[in-house]
Amino acid sequence: MKVTPQSIRVGTQMLPAQGGFLLASRALELLGLAFPADWPGYARTQGLTSPERDFGLGPEPTLSLSEFVRLGFESQTPQARRWQKGAHKLLARMLAGDVRLSAEIAEANPDPQAGRWLHARLENQNARKLLMSTVARHGGSAEVYGQLGSISNASVLGMDSATLRRERGVKSTRDGLNTEELLRLSYLESATASTIEGRSAHGNAAILSIHRSLAAQERRTWQGQAGGAGQARQGGVVGRPAGAGLAGTGSPQQTG
Amino acid sequence: MKVTPQSIRVGTQMLPAQGGFLLASRALELLGLAFPADWPGYARTQGLTSPERDFGLGPEPTLSLSEFVRLGFESQTPQARRWQKGAHKLLARMLAGDVRLSAEIAEANPDPQAGRWLHARLENQNARKLLMSTVARHGGSAEVYGQLGSISNASVLGMDSATLRRERGVKSTRDGLNTEELLRLSYLESATASTIEGRSAHGNAAILSIHRSLAAQERRTWQGQAGGAGQARQGGVVGRPAGAGLAGTGSPQQTG
Repeated sequence: MKVTPQSIRVGTQMLPAQGGFLLASRALELLGLAFPADWPGYARTQGLTSPERDFGLGPEPTLSLSEFVRLGFESQTPQARRWQKGAHKLLARMLAGDVRLSAEIAEANPDPQAGRWLHARLENQNARKLLMSTVARHGGSAEVYGQLGSISNASVLGMDSATLRRERGVKSTRDGLNTEELLRLSYLESATASTIEGRSAHGNAAILSIHRSLAAQERRTWQGQAGGAGQARQGGVVGRPAGAGLAGTGSPQQTG
Repeated sequence: MKVTPQSIRVGTQMLPAQGGFLLASRALELLGLAFPADWPGYARTQGLTSPERDFGLGPEPTLSLSEFVRLGFESQTPQARRWQKGAHKLLARMLAGDVRLSAEIAEANPDPQAGRWLHARLENQNARKLLMSTVARHGGSAEVYGQLGSISNASVLGMDSATLRRERGVKSTRDGLNTEELLRLSYLESATASTIEGRSAHGNAAILSIHRSLAAQERRTWQGQAGGAGQARQGGVVGRPAGAGLAGTGSPQQTG
């Protein structure tokens, strides 16, 4: 059996981990808890259901990250209290929107594609904001925002956002998009903003007409159909990144 | 007095906030706690020391984010228990390096420069990794990594990293850098990696000599001194972003 060593940083310590599960003995030690002589009994009492994993010495008990967090808050050892204090600080920083914490979390992800996804997601937010402010300056009214989004989604994702959220099991649409989809949406919405500006378009009908036409054109470009409706631009071909997306990256998923 | 409305998202709710302080009445309500008739007494008992702020109806009590988090964990109302469960999930996602959470935190930051800083910081990490792997492939030994970093720091930051951490009050050097400094370091380290590769340089001495010379050259470019040591490149001038950096962005700092 191939043993893939991994680790997860908790405070200043690196805990051995396999596929998002912590080696229970080391995780308990960090919280100042003795490893129980009767693990199955302890696990039953505490409601711990994580699978055993091989860390190089045969199968050993593990804790999922949510089990670890739960035990951390339930325990009253000096070590657990110290951990709780650190957790409180992290939560306060999260509420404050601390981008340094944002960077630390991204850096904790072992997947090299994760950073790319985050870039694409942040860029997508910028493109969206730019489009919205351009539309506002060019006489677009409130309902046009939703319509622009619907056109983008139908063209790039091939479905509406409610369907996407249901199919991909996410609460927020943007969380369900892979890197490639985010890139295409950013590109399309930037192109629309720049065309509205360039043509001094005004009002909902003009704005929607531009967006519909660019959406169709972007889709043809992405599908490798050069030419098209007689106004295809040269040099606008976006490279198709291989293996884009977060799916199947092996980053641990929490459901607890 | 000018009232600047703000808000901080907690779970699905937006709580009124001023400069990182939550309106106490609404924050307590979220936790299912009645607003105490005797606020000064309550504040004393609970060790709450946040200043009053004006939310439009005259000065009102506030909670800092760490005070809110502490009360959230100490309270046992159904609402507080629900909040605690959400907090547990967030901590598990943080440990897992969930980049979606990373994006959510960045998006919670009202400062438009925050996203730019995060981009620069992530890019800096990529540039650093690329340099390290290039050095390893070109016969650099273990001690050269630290020396390269020292040269970069002295040239771009004008001080060593220990001094920087002390002066700026950060634990990790990269957290103390502003957007401009991160950009310059990424640029310099990418240029060194590409030159090592292009010249097929080999061994510590050759690598360090390239890095020293490019560091001096980058510094001259940044300071607007074209020409220089007879080998200045054209077209390599990096734009000088105005108002770069996170300093003074008004993002709430947590010290609790």
